[in-house]
Amino acid sequence: MIPFSWASRVYWEDTDGGGIVYYANYLRFLERARTEWLRSLGYSQRALAEEPGIVFAVVSLNIEYRKPAKLDDELVITCQPHAEGAATIAFAQQIYRKGGEVPGKADGVHNLLVEANARVACLDARTLRPRRLPDFMTLAADSRPRVAAADARPNIEEPS
Amino acid sequence: MIPFSWASRVYWEDTDGGGIVYYANYLRFLERARTEWLRSLGYSQRALAEEPGIVFAVVSLNIEYRKPAKLDDELVITCQPHAEGAATIAFAQQIYRKGGEVPGKADGVHNLLVEANARVACLDARTLRPRRLPDFMTLAADSRPRVAAADARPNIEEPS
Amino acid sequence: MIPFSWASRVYWEDTDGGGIVYYANYLRFLERARTEWLRSLGYSQRALAEEPGIVFAVVSLNIEYRKPAKLDDELVITCQPHAEGAATIAFAQQIYRKGGEVPGKADGVHNLLVEANARVACLDARTLRPRRLPDFMTLAADSRPRVAAADARPNIEEPS
Amino acid sequence: MIPFSWASRVYWEDTDGGGIVYYANYLRFLERARTEWLRSLGYSQRALAEEPGIVFAVVSLNIEYRKPAKLDDELVITCQPHAEGAATIAFAQQIYRKGGEVPGKADGVHNLLVEANARVACLDARTLRPRRLPDFMTLAADSRPRVAAADARPNIEEPS
Repeated sequence: MIPFSWASRVYWEDTDGGGIVYYANYLRFLERARTEWLRSLGYSQRALAEEPGIVFAVVSLNIEYRKPAKLDDELVITCQPHAEGAATIAFAQQIYRKGGEVPGKADGVHNLLVEANARVACLDARTLRPRRLPDFMTLAADSRPRVAAADARPNIEEPS
Repeated sequence: MIPFSWASRVYWEDTDGGGIVYYANYLRFLERARTEWLRSLGYSQRALAEEPGIVFAVVSLNIEYRKPAKLDDELVITCQPHAEGAATIAFAQQIYRKGGEVPGKADGVHNLLVEANARVACLDARTLRPRRLPDFMTLAADSRPRVAAADARPNIEEPS
Repeated sequence: MIPFSWASRVYWEDTDGGGIVYYANYLRFLERARTEWLRSLGYSQRALAEEPGIVFAVVSLNIEYRKPAKLDDELVITCQPHAEGAATIAFAQQIYRKGGEVPGKADGVHNLLVEANARVACLDARTLRPRRLPDFMTLAADSRPRVAAADARPNIEEPS
Repeated sequence: MIPFSWASRVYWEDTDGGGIVYYANYLRFLERARTEWLRSLGYSQRALAEEPGIVFAVVSLNIEYRKPAKLDDELVITCQPHAEGAATIAFAQQIYRKGGEVPGKADGVHNLLVEANARVACLDARTLRPRRLPDFMTLAADSRPRVAAADARPNIEEPS
């Protein structure tokens, strides 16, 4: 099954003096994809904070930096949710460089830059205490079972 | 004449504890639009740094913060270049909030969040000394004469 | 008169792919100095937001980038306030590189990297409408009259 | 044994619309502490990139967000290195809030905000291929054996 994915460009703001994306800034790309996954289900975080009054907080993150992204790269960030208990959701995420260094290669493996797993808690917007995930998130997570990374890869080979 | 414009979304990374976009982060949106203006002419900064070997540096910026942008806002950033001497180019830029607080209002004035003028120097990528702007930039700048802000406004009224 | 100044280091997070501090990130250094000026008077912004219930918003900024700051540079950021009306305060600010490229030179002029003027509005924390500046800020601003940049320069020549 | 630690303040730039430090920005604090640990040994990264010509890249990071940091908080970031092979070094790091919510409590446990483990590769600055860590780093790492988090805690209780 193809997970949700979101495209984003690397700008100067993302790079550091080493000429590559600064290690903290990949977390911004990861969050954009989680936010857009939510939007793809019809929900904005600003609206959810008002009704039903929930916010989200990352409680832990594992991230592996395999290859660096560079200025002007177009990235594809995946986001595959799976429920973990009533008030926590986990996201398996990858960041790929669009296009590819080896255009004839079909599987896109050479494009994988970053792999991450983020655990996110659902909190009451007022009390900041744990709160049950809304049904639409649990359902969306359940409908996207955890799969091996190789199968979860999006089709990102495109004519540049 | 309608200037170049580029759309961008506000994410958590852009906001600060006041619930609005942090004042330095509008400069990131401004640069994304300048970079995309260049790309719309067929050039990436990474390629220009190699051939003909030029880079760009902002030498001064004036910015007025009229209204704040908030989480989930979709922004439209304009970019209107005009040449200033052989090695400097200036950009008149605005940031608008897409959609609008007053849907029936036709002219979009209520959406203007930020106005800025950026002066950018063209430098030799190796020596970092001033260098003549490439012709394609001077021509593109000349073809977009400085106009009053009211006339330069893009048509950004859209059904949300 | 010597204006308030605050020292800060350049880290990887501040640089961009050009090997120098990203143009938006100087605004973070400028704000750190304004925040520390306030703290030097005995006030934190978190406390002021509660009592008397005020927050601050930058309404305009002019900034000139004279020389770039690089990784590991130690910066000195000045902050010289002057009142502008009842609800607005302006800050003349400079960013210097500590130490110096020309050690024998006494006046530190060669170290000036950035000059900026920021106008900041005082707002009611609840309604976000303009509100009178607290007396302690007006007094501190008045006691620090606007002077020529050359006189406002801090003594930043130090043995590295 | 008390690990190396470094103090840093939370400014507006670090917070997000939730009123707390944005999850990616803790990684900036973690790196400041690693950079300052290196400086405490007498080395800057800018100098090391020239002679012996090495740079560092984070290859993986695990981070747990226990409690949020807020505007104006003064943080203490620890950095405890241990060598992992010839070309990789790992850092166990914590971020504490200085002072404390329970002033009479002696052990500071209530102040722990973030725990992280970062694996960092030593690379040739020119080829970006793995390279042996310089001796001074291996020695410093060896002299600071991995200990339980409870023992590694710095003494950060101070009169505010």
